[in-house]
Amino acid sequence: MKTIYLDYNATSPIRPEVLEAMMPYLKDDFGNPSSLYLVGQRARKAVEGARAKIAEFIGARDPDEIVFTSGGTEADNLAIKGAALGNIRKAKRIVISAIEHSAVREAASFLRKVDSFQVVEKPVEPSGAIDPDDFDEFLTPDTTLVSIMAVNNETGVIQPVDKFSPGLRRKGILFHTDAVQAAGRIKIDVDGWGADLLTLSGHKFGAPKSVGILYVRKGTRMEGLIQGGSQEKNRRGGTENVAAIVGMGVAADLAKKELEKESIRIQKMRDNLEGTLLSRIPNSFVNGAGAKRVANTTNICFEYTESSKMIMALDLKGVSASNGSACASGNPNPSHVLLAMGLPQDKAHASMRFSLGHSNTEEEIKKAAEIIVQTVSEVRATNPLWKEKALL
Amino acid sequence: MKTIYLDYNATSPIRPEVLEAMMPYLKDDFGNPSSLYLVGQRARKAVEGARAKIAEFIGARDPDEIVFTSGGTEADNLAIKGAALGNIRKAKRIVISAIEHSAVREAASFLRKVDSFQVVEKPVEPSGAIDPDDFDEFLTPDTTLVSIMAVNNETGVIQPVDKFSPGLRRKGILFHTDAVQAAGRIKIDVDGWGADLLTLSGHKFGAPKSVGILYVRKGTRMEGLIQGGSQEKNRRGGTENVAAIVGMGVAADLAKKELEKESIRIQKMRDNLEGTLLSRIPNSFVNGAGAKRVANTTNICFEYTESSKMIMALDLKGVSASNGSACASGNPNPSHVLLAMGLPQDKAHASMRFSLGHSNTEEEIKKAAEIIVQTVSEVRATNPLWKEKALL
Repeated sequence: MKTIYLDYNATSPIRPEVLEAMMPYLKDDFGNPSSLYLVGQRARKAVEGARAKIAEFIGARDPDEIVFTSGGTEADNLAIKGAALGNIRKAKRIVISAIEHSAVREAASFLRKVDSFQVVEKPVEPSGAIDPDDFDEFLTPDTTLVSIMAVNNETGVIQPVDKFSPGLRRKGILFHTDAVQAAGRIKIDVDGWGADLLTLSGHKFGAPKSVGILYVRKGTRMEGLIQGGSQEKNRRGGTENVAAIVGMGVAADLAKKELEKESIRIQKMRDNLEGTLLSRIPNSFVNGAGAKRVANTTNICFEYTESSKMIMALDLKGVSASNGSACASGNPNPSHVLLAMGLPQDKAHASMRFSLGHSNTEEEIKKAAEIIVQTVSEVRATNPLWKEKALL
Repeated sequence: MKTIYLDYNATSPIRPEVLEAMMPYLKDDFGNPSSLYLVGQRARKAVEGARAKIAEFIGARDPDEIVFTSGGTEADNLAIKGAALGNIRKAKRIVISAIEHSAVREAASFLRKVDSFQVVEKPVEPSGAIDPDDFDEFLTPDTTLVSIMAVNNETGVIQPVDKFSPGLRRKGILFHTDAVQAAGRIKIDVDGWGADLLTLSGHKFGAPKSVGILYVRKGTRMEGLIQGGSQEKNRRGGTENVAAIVGMGVAADLAKKELEKESIRIQKMRDNLEGTLLSRIPNSFVNGAGAKRVANTTNICFEYTESSKMIMALDLKGVSASNGSACASGNPNPSHVLLAMGLPQDKAHASMRFSLGHSNTEEEIKKAAEIIVQTVSEVRATNPLWKEKALL
């Protein structure tokens, strides 16, 4: 049984073109980019080529604004801690949204715990979108940094990131956006968005795990997170992950080239899936339906089910899906994103995320829809509350 | 022209057995180990298998004492900052040796700059070894952490790490050792060494770049460096680098199995190289000759040469070698390690490191020796001081 993989927001398979480009750097071209001899300089050139591709992918003017990291989580930590510690004002205060990824939330918590920062959360609307209109109220003179994600990983809701930066720039507050779920889904535009700092993760769009970037706008004052050698112009120590960096460059090129076509193809499949599930499953609804969403994600509440049971039952039938962030798996608490949108606990617990990607086909999605319909039925059949309701 | 690679201490090619073990995780087994379904759980199982192998490799009792990181530099940063911030005493004070890798030195500098720590450096003997006899004098009651490397990356000198821990344990001071250059060169024994924290880097012993570990003895209080998801039992957020982790497990197994045989083979080649160079090149000597050294490294001063010129000239003749840490390449300052051993600036600038490894053959080493002899001659011929001396 071939698995139908519907969890692209957790991780994606490496694109064959990406792996092919990586292979020489896993074999003969193994040099350390910091070495002065040819074997090293070939690796250096490959890293700089990838840096230029990624700069172009996100609309950065200068490849030197790209800092390679070990992934999105490190990049978020570098952004939050690096900018906060590098730009302390009279008091120490940062503002994040209520629906950030745990990498941003926990990096902020660390600053609160270890460096006495005040961390303020901007709530989210029931639609899943963050309202920019009342945002000014959150910006005190001692605020150093604001972090608002570009696309939510659980609901796929696109945030109006371009609406925050004008007010922030006027006040001299740095703006970070976690764009991990934006890559390959919408056009990323650091200038249009007014981002001083922007995070990407390779493995969410066809590059391998172990590589990410932080875009750092020229002139931004930062502390580093990982000190050591002078790699990445002294902004991130440690031997560069050459093969994965090369892979991320190729993935960025592919994502750029295919964005329009793939978005249409994937949105059609997502809409079909969503349509089938909502029409055939009573007491179901889409979380984030009222907001603008990326094409590949749907987060659906199947009332009277429990997502952990759904995941296991779907897995046995060959469908891989999740109940939100993989990073929170095994955590018995319901999604902080769905709770922040005002969902009660039981409905948050009954919500599933399906996120599509490059490898999915129409046929797969049709089959998955049938399996999900059947599975919801089966899971509900074991729920006394559902049986009670059916009798009413 | 096939390159003769003599810079294993900078980075090593991935062992074919390692790459083979990694490939499934770069292809079909791409799941996120935090995902609950089968595709994810296969990745989880692979990560835990590697953890057990690495625990065995270093003599750790419990695989849960292994924290995977993006490499040695991150692991050193986690050790220094995590232990220092997690165990602050009356005052903030840590002790490192004068010859630590920049990852330890710069992580300590960060604590000095951002968190007002006092950082004290224990000097090194002219032999390159750190003397444990007067070490107690460095240990004040407010000292939190001591970091002394197991094997120096530039000279290959083996430090008497097992001699420091009894005093430290009595005083309740944590002991970290950077064992990056020990892996595959000498037997690592966390208990025998009395290490509370120990760093390894995969790419120094046949695993890929992008993976390392910090051993954290059970019960050690630590802050994290990278927060996010609950990966690595909440000690390091971020999706695990599954393929590289699997590779590091295989590399550890190979290194363990082959240590004795490879050490003998490589030492013979290193001694031949060293013998030829010292006997045929006047005004040359080995840095660290008076101390116990690992089998693969020789650091030789060719007086009246300049290492940057040597590197370039050797590179043109197909020999890859360095003048010390790749992480300090391009840095015009002479090696802090050699200066700490009492070498004057000009002799530090005239010193080269040759570090051997798995792929090297006797024939290669003989050929390299000839090329080096010839190159020293040529570089000296351009040095007016050498010509002057020759006329005396």
